[in-house]
Amino acid sequence: MSTAEETSGGEVQPWGEVTPDAARRLLVAAVEAFAERGYHATTTRDIAGRAGMSPAALYIHYKTKEELLHRISRIGHEKALDVLRTAAESEGGPAERLAEAVRSFVRWHAGQHTVARVVQYELDALGPEARAEIVALRRQNDAAVRGIIEDGVAAGDFDVPDVRGTTIAVLSLCIDVARWFNVNGPRTPDEVGALYADLVLRMVGAKSRPRP
Amino acid sequence: MSTAEETSGGEVQPWGEVTPDAARRLLVAAVEAFAERGYHATTTRDIAGRAGMSPAALYIHYKTKEELLHRISRIGHEKALDVLRTAAESEGGPAERLAEAVRSFVRWHAGQHTVARVVQYELDALGPEARAEIVALRRQNDAAVRGIIEDGVAAGDFDVPDVRGTTIAVLSLCIDVARWFNVNGPRTPDEVGALYADLVLRMVGAKSRPRP
Repeated sequence: MSTAEETSGGEVQPWGEVTPDAARRLLVAAVEAFAERGYHATTTRDIAGRAGMSPAALYIHYKTKEELLHRISRIGHEKALDVLRTAAESEGGPAERLAEAVRSFVRWHAGQHTVARVVQYELDALGPEARAEIVALRRQNDAAVRGIIEDGVAAGDFDVPDVRGTTIAVLSLCIDVARWFNVNGPRTPDEVGALYADLVLRMVGAKSRPRP
Repeated sequence: MSTAEETSGGEVQPWGEVTPDAARRLLVAAVEAFAERGYHATTTRDIAGRAGMSPAALYIHYKTKEELLHRISRIGHEKALDVLRTAAESEGGPAERLAEAVRSFVRWHAGQHTVARVVQYELDALGPEARAEIVALRRQNDAAVRGIIEDGVAAGDFDVPDVRGTTIAVLSLCIDVARWFNVNGPRTPDEVGALYADLVLRMVGAKSRPRP
């Protein structure tokens, strides 16, 4: 089984590592149900039905609906962190690394917009422990981007009066792609990524900036 | 009655023009319920109960739950458009007008984050007619910002290779403030607005840019 799986909407799903197959089918069904109707309007019976399983079969894999949301949110955030860290640790100067972080983070949010919406908009539905774990992952996302911006400022390549605020803005710009991105729209995820990489290099006042 | 009403969360509500008082209370109750539990998990009985009214009293003012969402979404979008148009038509050059549009749009999304989240995230729950009306209002929002950017390019004040894409990014950056803004966080709506105005002038390559 490959680590990515295409749904009918053409989105590449990050659930390859979830085993067994029934547990993965239930996660995919939960993402679809939460995205369509919201977390609170979805029952474990709905999720089991979408996955072609009985509610009893669901409980073998997940004790509660919240456990499903927690699992989706953790995997989503870990994948996003992986994308950002790979860019942050890549070769090249701060401008190249920041551009690559933005390109790949945008691609992720455009390509996985259904997962990303659930992960971003249903955070309040998690209990305190699960939420604390996800908030810690989000802090690591912030730190990965902030680190590149700090490197750029230290090297004299960027001009950023407010590093923390600019970091929030850069991540926010990329995350909101999940809200507005339309697979039938005029731009591909790669095209949005290229445009956004250029806009972000402008935001940090990068001294050298390739033409988009 | 003033045109703005403060809730316990300190948000200024844009429902002053909704009359009679019972119809307004029901809208405020619906925004809170939709924000907490999502549109599909909320019943008209929940909304009536929050407003201290009976379901029968609700039906005097709103025939369906969708009518409530439609009314909330229309008022929210009209207020946002009013904010953007006021800035677009204000005195000053393109850089001043764009900075003012961003400052006031950010203030709106930070100050009204509960309303804004409902308006932005529950759009898919509207029926085709209501949705078409809201999409038309969103196009006018886009056009207001795009007009300022086009003026700046024509005047030689801005350097923007992709006006449509940059317009989407500017609006998206401001709208996503509603997702992450926290009234207990370190920044006021005005501070976020000032930071974002500077970042957006950088995005459009504004020739002159006041220090933030």
